Amino acid sequence: MKRDNKVMPSLAEAIRQTGLRDGMTVSFHHHLRDGDAVLNLVLAECEKLGVRDLTVNASALMACHHPIVDFIRKGTVTGIECNYMHPVVGHEISKGLLAREVIFRSHGGRPAALERKEAHIDVAFIAASTSDRAGNCNGRDGRTAFGSIGYAMPDAEHADNVVVVTDHLAPYPVSVASIDERYVDAVVVIDSIGDPDKIMSGTTRVTRDPIGLLIADYTARALSASGLLEDGLSFQTGAGGTSLAVASFIGEIMRGRGIRGSFASGGITGMLVDLFQEGLFETLIDVQCFDRDAVRSIRDNEKHREISASTYASPAVKSSVVDHLDIVILGATEIDSQFNVNVHTDSNGFIMGGSGGHSDTAAGAKLSVIVAPLIRARLPLIVDRVGTISTPGKDVDLLVTQYGLACNPEKTELDYRLRSAGLPVFTIEELHERAVGITGVPGRHPSQGRPVARVVSRDGDLLDIIRAVNR
Amino acid sequence: MKRDNKVMPSLAEAIRQTGLRDGMTVSFHHHLRDGDAVLNLVLAECEKLGVRDLTVNASALMACHHPIVDFIRKGTVTGIECNYMHPVVGHEISKGLLAREVIFRSHGGRPAALERKEAHIDVAFIAASTSDRAGNCNGRDGRTAFGSIGYAMPDAEHADNVVVVTDHLAPYPVSVASIDERYVDAVVVIDSIGDPDKIMSGTTRVTRDPIGLLIADYTARALSASGLLEDGLSFQTGAGGTSLAVASFIGEIMRGRGIRGSFASGGITGMLVDLFQEGLFETLIDVQCFDRDAVRSIRDNEKHREISASTYASPAVKSSVVDHLDIVILGATEIDSQFNVNVHTDSNGFIMGGSGGHSDTAAGAKLSVIVAPLIRARLPLIVDRVGTISTPGKDVDLLVTQYGLACNPEKTELDYRLRSAGLPVFTIEELHERAVGITGVPGRHPSQGRPVARVVSRDGDLLDIIRAVNR
Repeated sequence: MKRDNKVMPSLAEAIRQTGLRDGMTVSFHHHLRDGDAVLNLVLAECEKLGVRDLTVNASALMACHHPIVDFIRKGTVTGIECNYMHPVVGHEISKGLLAREVIFRSHGGRPAALERKEAHIDVAFIAASTSDRAGNCNGRDGRTAFGSIGYAMPDAEHADNVVVVTDHLAPYPVSVASIDERYVDAVVVIDSIGDPDKIMSGTTRVTRDPIGLLIADYTARALSASGLLEDGLSFQTGAGGTSLAVASFIGEIMRGRGIRGSFASGGITGMLVDLFQEGLFETLIDVQCFDRDAVRSIRDNEKHREISASTYASPAVKSSVVDHLDIVILGATEIDSQFNVNVHTDSNGFIMGGSGGHSDTAAGAKLSVIVAPLIRARLPLIVDRVGTISTPGKDVDLLVTQYGLACNPEKTELDYRLRSAGLPVFTIEELHERAVGITGVPGRHPSQGRPVARVVSRDGDLLDIIRAVNR
Repeated sequence: MKRDNKVMPSLAEAIRQTGLRDGMTVSFHHHLRDGDAVLNLVLAECEKLGVRDLTVNASALMACHHPIVDFIRKGTVTGIECNYMHPVVGHEISKGLLAREVIFRSHGGRPAALERKEAHIDVAFIAASTSDRAGNCNGRDGRTAFGSIGYAMPDAEHADNVVVVTDHLAPYPVSVASIDERYVDAVVVIDSIGDPDKIMSGTTRVTRDPIGLLIADYTARALSASGLLEDGLSFQTGAGGTSLAVASFIGEIMRGRGIRGSFASGGITGMLVDLFQEGLFETLIDVQCFDRDAVRSIRDNEKHREISASTYASPAVKSSVVDHLDIVILGATEIDSQFNVNVHTDSNGFIMGGSGGHSDTAAGAKLSVIVAPLIRARLPLIVDRVGTISTPGKDVDLLVTQYGLACNPEKTELDYRLRSAGLPVFTIEELHERAVGITGVPGRHPSQGRPVARVVSRDGDLLDIIRAVNR
C-alpha cells in the first residue's frame, strides 16, 4: 500500500490487501451503538470473499449486529470476544449457537489483553466519521459524527492491519487525528457507516419512575454523607434513567454547597455536559459519547477530553482514569450477599449484557455504588449466589434500593456515616429477606449445559463461566 | 509507585525509584533548545547518586548541554545517541573524548530505532511545562511553555520507565495530555525546567544578507517553475534566515496566485504561523516550536496540530507526515557532485551539527531543495566528496546558490522546467568550478583518527563514520 494515499477502491479490495485469511481475528468498535453499519458490512464482504472461521473481537455487540447470528450459522464467524452482548445475540449464544466459548472482557480488560498480548487482532476495521487519505481520522467531524473513538484506539495501536472505514473523506491532513496515520494501512470510503440518530439508546433520559427517583434520592443523600462530595470531586455514572437522576441530584447538591468537581468520566451524556458547562466539573473525560449533546461538546470544548479505552481503564498501563475516580454509580441485574454483581445473564441464565466498564470503575473508584430496584419483574435483586460474577464483591461498596441501603461489611466507616445521616441502612441479608418476603423464594435453575462463555477479569483471570441454557 | 499520585519528593527519589543502574540508557528531548535545564540537572543528580556508565539518548545536544563533557570525563556518561550535536560538545567528541562511538540518527530515525527495537531507553526524563499528579503533561501550558513535545512522545511510549519533570503541577486532569498518564511512572516538581526565552535561537529571523536574499529569490522562482506551487501545496522549511526568506517569498507567490496550501510542517516558526493565520495554509503540523509565536499558536489553534516525532518522520510506521510533503527547503555545510549533503562536520572534520529532520524530509518530499551560499568563510560549498554523508544524494533534487542552480541529474523534467523559466541552471560540476575559481582548491585533510561517531540512516543502516580529528 502507498504511504501517501491509502484509499482503496472498495471494501473487498481493502480486505484482500490486508491478507485476511480463514481463522484470523477481526475487530470493531461500537461507538455508533445501535446505528452501526460497519460490522455487518465487513462480515458480509468476508462471506462473499469466502473467508471463514473468523473471530470477531468487538468492544460490544448491539441489537443491530443481529446478522452476526447468520454469519455464525454459515461458518464465516466461529469466535466472539466482546465486552457486552445484546440479548438478541446473547440468547442465541446461550442456546449453544457457537462451538467455541465467547470471551467476555471489560472495557479496560480488552485493551489490557492487547497490551499483555493475551489477545491479538489481525485486522481492525475502524468506523470513522471523517478520515483523510492517509488514515488520520476521528469520530467528531462529518455527517455521521459519533464523538469519541476511544474504544478503537487500542485496536489501531495493536492490530497487525488497520482499515479505516469512513463515509467522509476529508483533505489531508485531518487536524484532530484521534487515530493517527502512523497506525493505518488502508482507507475505504462507503456510502454510510451508520445512523448517528441511534447512538442514543432508550436509556439516556432521567427516570420519571417514582421508584427510580427514590433510589436516586437515597443515593444522593448517601454520597452527601460519604464525605466524598467535596471540591475536586470526580464522578462517573451510566446512561440509565436512575443514574441520570443521581447525576441531576448531585448537581443540585454541588450547586447548593458551591462545590466544584475535577472531572466526570465514562460514557458522556448531555446531563454531564450540562453540569460541565455550568462549571460544576472542570473537565469531561470521554471514552464514548452517549448522545448528540456529548458529540457536540467533545468537538467544541478542549476540556472535554477524548481518551483511549486504555487510558480510561486498562490495568496493564501505568495508570488510567478509573484510578482517579471518587464515585461511580452502577447498575446490576443481580447482587448476592458477598456483593458480587451480575450484569451478564438474566434470571433464566441467558446472556443479556456484559461488564462494559462496570468492573473497571468499581475496582478503581473510592466509592462504588450499585443502584437498582429491590424487585424487578417479580424477582428479587438480591440472590444467594449470582448467576454470573461480572464484578467481584470486593470492589462493590454500597447497594442502594428503594427499600434501603446496604454497605459492604468491609466499609464500616461508610456504614457509620450513612446511619448517622439517618439513612435506612440494613445488612444485605436484611434487604434480601425483605425482598423474598415480597416475591417469595424464586425457583432457581442454574444452567447445567456446556460452557458457552468465559468471563475474564480486567486482570486477565477467569472470573466465571457461563453455561448453555438447555430447556 | 501509586497509580493515582506519582509525585516524588525529589528528583533523587524519582531516579532511585526507577531502579536506574550503571550501564543504562537515559533519554531527553530538546524542546527547550538552548534554554533546557533538565538534562544537566538529571545527570548531576545521577552523578551524586553514584550512577555511572550511562548512555544519553537525546533528540539533540545544544550549547547549554556543555556540562555533559564533564560528566563524560567523570565516567557518569560513557555513551551518546542523538540527532544533532552543538559544536561545543561536538568538538570534544571529535578530539576523542568518548571511548564509544556516538550514534547519530535523524528525527525520524530515532523513533524508528525504538519501534524496531534497535534502540532501547531504560529511563526517559521528560521536561514538561505542565503536568498533573498522574503524569498527564504537555509543553503548551505553564510559565515555561515551549509548545509541541513531539520528540518526547516516542520516548514515553517505548521507555521502560518514564519520569516527567515539571515546574508547574496542575490539578488532575490536565486536559490536553500531549503525553498520557498511561505511560508515566513518576512526576517530579522542580523550580525551573529552563528558560523559554532561549527557545528561539539566533537563526529564526528572515535574512537581510543580500546573498541570502538572492538565494531565496532564485529558490522561490524555481519552486514557482516546478509545477508544485498549486492548491493543496505542502511545505517545510527550517528556521535559518535564508529558509525564512524563502517562506516569505512563497507566501507572496501564493497570495498573488490565490493558492491555498494544505499544510506547513516541521519546526514551526512565527513566519509559518503568519502564513497559516492569513489562510495560506490550512493547517500547521508541529513536531517542535521554534519561537514564542509558534508556542502561542499551538495552544490556541486546533488546526495547529502537535505530532509525535514518529508521526512526523518515522519510516518504521505505516506512514508519516514527511511522506506527504511536496517541498522541503534545507541547508548544507557541504554538498558533493553526487548531491550527498553534509550537515554533521565542518571543513576541518569537527562535529558541529547533525541530521535533525534533514534526511527524513529529503527522502519524503517530492522536491527537496538545498539552499546555501556557494562560498562560506572562503571555502567552497561544493566538494569532491563530502566529509560526512548526512543525507544521500539520491534524496536531494536541487541545489540553489547565489551563483545559480543545479539539478540532480535524475531530475530531468525539473531541469527542463527551470531552464525554460530562464533561471541560471548549471551542472553541479560547473558550480563547483565556479566556486574553486574564486576560492582556489582548498587543502582537504580527511580525518584519519579512530571512529568517534556513526551516522545511521533513517532506515537503520550505516550511512557514514566520523573519525577523530588528530591535529
